[in-house]
Amino acid sequence: MSLLKGIEGPSDLRKLSPEQFPDLCQEIRDQIISVISDVGGHLASNLGVVELTVALHYLLHTPDDLIVWDTSNQTYAHKLLTGRREQFHTIRQFGGLSGFCKREESVYDTFNAGHAGTGVSAAVGFVEAREQQKQSHKVVCVVGDGALTSGLTLEGLQQAGDSQKDLLVILNDNQMSISKNVGAISAYLNRTITGELGVRLQEKVNLLMETIPRIGGQVKKVAGRAQSLAKGLVSPGMLFEELGFRYVGPLDGHEFDYLLPTLENVLKLEGPTLLHVVTKKGLGYEPAMNDPVWFHASSPFDLDTGKPKGKAARPSYSSIAVNTLVQLAKEDPRIVAITAAMCEGTGLTAFEQSFPDRLYDVGIAEQHAVTFAAGMATQGMRPVIPIYSTFLQRAYDQVIHDVATQNLPVTFCIDRGGLVAQDGTTHHGVFDFAYLRHMPNMVIMAPKDENELQHMVKSCISSDRPAAVRYPRGSGLGVQMDQVPEALPLGKGELLRSGTDIALVAIGVSVHQAMEAAERLEQEGVSAAVVNARFVKPIDADLIATVAGQVKCLLAIEEGAAMGGFGSAVLEVLSEAGIASVPAKCLGLPDWFIEQGPQDLLRDKYGLTADGIYQQAKQLFARVSVGPVST
Amino acid sequence: MSLLKGIEGPSDLRKLSPEQFPDLCQEIRDQIISVISDVGGHLASNLGVVELTVALHYLLHTPDDLIVWDTSNQTYAHKLLTGRREQFHTIRQFGGLSGFCKREESVYDTFNAGHAGTGVSAAVGFVEAREQQKQSHKVVCVVGDGALTSGLTLEGLQQAGDSQKDLLVILNDNQMSISKNVGAISAYLNRTITGELGVRLQEKVNLLMETIPRIGGQVKKVAGRAQSLAKGLVSPGMLFEELGFRYVGPLDGHEFDYLLPTLENVLKLEGPTLLHVVTKKGLGYEPAMNDPVWFHASSPFDLDTGKPKGKAARPSYSSIAVNTLVQLAKEDPRIVAITAAMCEGTGLTAFEQSFPDRLYDVGIAEQHAVTFAAGMATQGMRPVIPIYSTFLQRAYDQVIHDVATQNLPVTFCIDRGGLVAQDGTTHHGVFDFAYLRHMPNMVIMAPKDENELQHMVKSCISSDRPAAVRYPRGSGLGVQMDQVPEALPLGKGELLRSGTDIALVAIGVSVHQAMEAAERLEQEGVSAAVVNARFVKPIDADLIATVAGQVKCLLAIEEGAAMGGFGSAVLEVLSEAGIASVPAKCLGLPDWFIEQGPQDLLRDKYGLTADGIYQQAKQLFARVSVGPVST
Repeated sequence: MSLLKGIEGPSDLRKLSPEQFPDLCQEIRDQIISVISDVGGHLASNLGVVELTVALHYLLHTPDDLIVWDTSNQTYAHKLLTGRREQFHTIRQFGGLSGFCKREESVYDTFNAGHAGTGVSAAVGFVEAREQQKQSHKVVCVVGDGALTSGLTLEGLQQAGDSQKDLLVILNDNQMSISKNVGAISAYLNRTITGELGVRLQEKVNLLMETIPRIGGQVKKVAGRAQSLAKGLVSPGMLFEELGFRYVGPLDGHEFDYLLPTLENVLKLEGPTLLHVVTKKGLGYEPAMNDPVWFHASSPFDLDTGKPKGKAARPSYSSIAVNTLVQLAKEDPRIVAITAAMCEGTGLTAFEQSFPDRLYDVGIAEQHAVTFAAGMATQGMRPVIPIYSTFLQRAYDQVIHDVATQNLPVTFCIDRGGLVAQDGTTHHGVFDFAYLRHMPNMVIMAPKDENELQHMVKSCISSDRPAAVRYPRGSGLGVQMDQVPEALPLGKGELLRSGTDIALVAIGVSVHQAMEAAERLEQEGVSAAVVNARFVKPIDADLIATVAGQVKCLLAIEEGAAMGGFGSAVLEVLSEAGIASVPAKCLGLPDWFIEQGPQDLLRDKYGLTADGIYQQAKQLFARVSVGPVST
Repeated sequence: MSLLKGIEGPSDLRKLSPEQFPDLCQEIRDQIISVISDVGGHLASNLGVVELTVALHYLLHTPDDLIVWDTSNQTYAHKLLTGRREQFHTIRQFGGLSGFCKREESVYDTFNAGHAGTGVSAAVGFVEAREQQKQSHKVVCVVGDGALTSGLTLEGLQQAGDSQKDLLVILNDNQMSISKNVGAISAYLNRTITGELGVRLQEKVNLLMETIPRIGGQVKKVAGRAQSLAKGLVSPGMLFEELGFRYVGPLDGHEFDYLLPTLENVLKLEGPTLLHVVTKKGLGYEPAMNDPVWFHASSPFDLDTGKPKGKAARPSYSSIAVNTLVQLAKEDPRIVAITAAMCEGTGLTAFEQSFPDRLYDVGIAEQHAVTFAAGMATQGMRPVIPIYSTFLQRAYDQVIHDVATQNLPVTFCIDRGGLVAQDGTTHHGVFDFAYLRHMPNMVIMAPKDENELQHMVKSCISSDRPAAVRYPRGSGLGVQMDQVPEALPLGKGELLRSGTDIALVAIGVSVHQAMEAAERLEQEGVSAAVVNARFVKPIDADLIATVAGQVKCLLAIEEGAAMGGFGSAVLEVLSEAGIASVPAKCLGLPDWFIEQGPQDLLRDKYGLTADGIYQQAKQLFARVSVGPVST
């Protein structure tokens, strides 16, 4: 009989006996593996925290007590236990459950996240709000070891350690962020866990914690002794203790016999406490344990073999960009690549294979990645940062203050520009044109296809300036590739089609959709010019003004936020050129956060398909032409 | 006879004998105090690092060896010693020396900075470039203790500690960032220095270091022993050692007898080393030692008394904003204020006086400040973050990802919006409209005067949404203040003047300039409407479209980057409304980084005065009107 089916919320969980938990965890794992094999998702991290999730909801009084899940891609078990079991199969699908925490979805989701490192800061906010409101609930933050590389986490830990208010931070240490972990804190944790010390201390801590009586003051005193004891040994938690935390651990995160009593006791401690829990990514599914990197965020896979389902797609934009980098790096020793824990996602493993000494993985530390690159660039290097559009947001100030003000030759390969599908709101790369465009010295490009991408990568590096090329998630169009990447003329777009009624001025993936739309328009007697803008900045003002002068109206098209984006740049061109007689409209994403869903579905919904462009163009032309266009 | 006058560069310094250094330092201090009393600047921090600067340039082979100054507002002595003595009196003036490092200014300036926390990352970039290029110069980064709160610094330290390449980080510990220091690391350093341990260890380290022989391997071995010794005592440097650094210190940063031999020996050490130097902010000028907060970045002052020169200005925008907060907080216990080490600069000391328990200074940690605020907002609080426009750039992702996606009621009081004068490029607040405007859910306002400011502060908090009010550096216009701050209707601008020839659509400080311009235009027979837009978002599309429909042309005016800014929003309104017949132009700051200089001078240079607006308006109207306007 299923235990999981009897759980409509944590209060049902609390009616179970801990002896039943291993069976419950097995059911949870089965459910997660089954659904994710079908729809794809963050499998490995979720399998690692099943016991921890059960223990937390069992011991805490959620939702009054507050759990913050850093990054929140490890909350599948949490969702299954908090009233969302029946919708769980819809996870990450259009209209379905989010793959992350979402306050709109459940009262048990306390803080939305998708970017790493926000958890501790949010939890400190919960704590101070509790103090202001004279309440007394518990606040617990679960943070992965990967997020410890993030400066934001370290900023949050500092305030927590300084204020000495009650807060439990659980360090879920699986020795991985997304791929292998890097950075001094990671090395430090490794020593902690693998050393003899770690083992000895774990036993001690467990024993001590089991015997702590259930009285506040006493707990503190005994724990204080444990602390001194630890200090004498050079405690593995010294780093955290120096930051003002009481450190407890390391502790096996899969053994309820240790986990429950320790957690129960730790929850009684006053002040900021860090409980160091060691878990195994992918536990319970052999393929995920063997390849936790692929299973960090996997596509649908075969349940038996763990192999990805579906066809081998055409080469992705990511792989084309990195292959070009490899090709260029062979002849240019100044080129190095920098990643913020996204070696696999961005395709950089191919670069690492060719140039292991020229690849820097700095961990989840986008800010540092950019300033580090700026530092290298001042010394004559040509650093390239492949990074997801949404994660480059973290380094906005570094791009301005460290790269752009000094006009340094740092190249940004902005991956996952535009709509990214299942990861939804926090992951769409739709603001990049708008947040980069106002930065002086910056060059911004987006290719119409994968062949143009290779030329743009080359163009970025050749520009000797801060330069970005932005490309979408997924496969290229399957076009013929030129043998050698060549630099494109800076700030020059191309006229793909002449026309006299309407100009479709498009950028990036929207260009081929615009071409298709133009053909349909022509069939209806509307003559449409198509401009592949290539550059958002410097924008080809001459070409756009010339084409605008030859048509009756103009539509600017981009897969990005319309507000302040590429279309807005086109309007500025027309304004500067004094072309007022040509009505111009911008087609881009609307002014709200875009939901999750397949790229094609979202493109369709927001009119960024050939058909959508055709419709918009027809409407606009109808408005400006004397007679109505045939409908 | 002057020693300083004989120094055209560090090579001259190296010809002196260390016995002459105290006299030289006195000359440097006199020079700095004299010039800064006249022009204003970062006095206290500069007086604190005179000896350290002399020691570094004496012992290093600059410019081949590279010094990175974090934040770089402490580089006045560095400038005096590196060939800029004769221009030093021009510092922070229009056309003069920068108050920060500037690579364009000198080969000794290795990395431009103005925002805190970039130094270690840049230095790690220097180090890795050196390794790639098989060079062997030294890299030294000088970082203040305040910048240790910054996540970026901590990210940089992690890579440095992990990679184990040669790098010397000098922690210049004056126990202050800008105002009093906060955070766990700060508390930790305090214990280190003030404890008996610190004193004992300092003696030991000094003794040991003096006897280290000049051979690489040996140095390491002996230093290793010093380390073990330290560990036995629970080293004050444990925090850094856990991060992979060798720790040396604390060391008196003003005593050449200790400083020179220790630094000389430390420079021979391999791997990442942290030298902890304790200095005194303002040393050598009594008033600055007594009030290092005011003298962090002072206006011109009387040399004898240390009192500010010049008249008492009208109340500043900062003080009006904070007074309003105090007023509102009396009735609304949900209001708390959060600052990132800018209690004085933003005027929050007034809030702290009334509500000491509702003011959170999180240190130089803008990212955390915003996510922390988001956390509080989820719990029913109404956090307000007064912050300089340029520093909010650091938290761009947190504003989007933590505040805007969750539509949380966090208020941003964006101070120093627009041109900020002497601090120049890195400090102008000119990108805020452009970087906030594309964020869904965000409300963005800017007041035409200080009375409107108080209503806008109230409007932000009442909106129950993410909301920003952006105001300039300096004094208000001296207008009559209403008794009670009242919420303005969301997204509604006001028509200040009707007109039929041209519409001047302005925001913020530009509104009163536009009014003046309109009067001059009227005298010449050009009828100008003036719109005070009030909201950049949601922009008052109805009002703007209506007014646009009644004139022959339109000029949008803002003190901010024109690209993607407020004017671009106005163009979007016209495009959406289908108003193509009205030529529209944007007047804002051009697409380059704005130099330092007095606000008035810069406004004049960039045409953002009444006269500049008048000229632009006249030109635009002349272009669109049938006959030329009278000139």
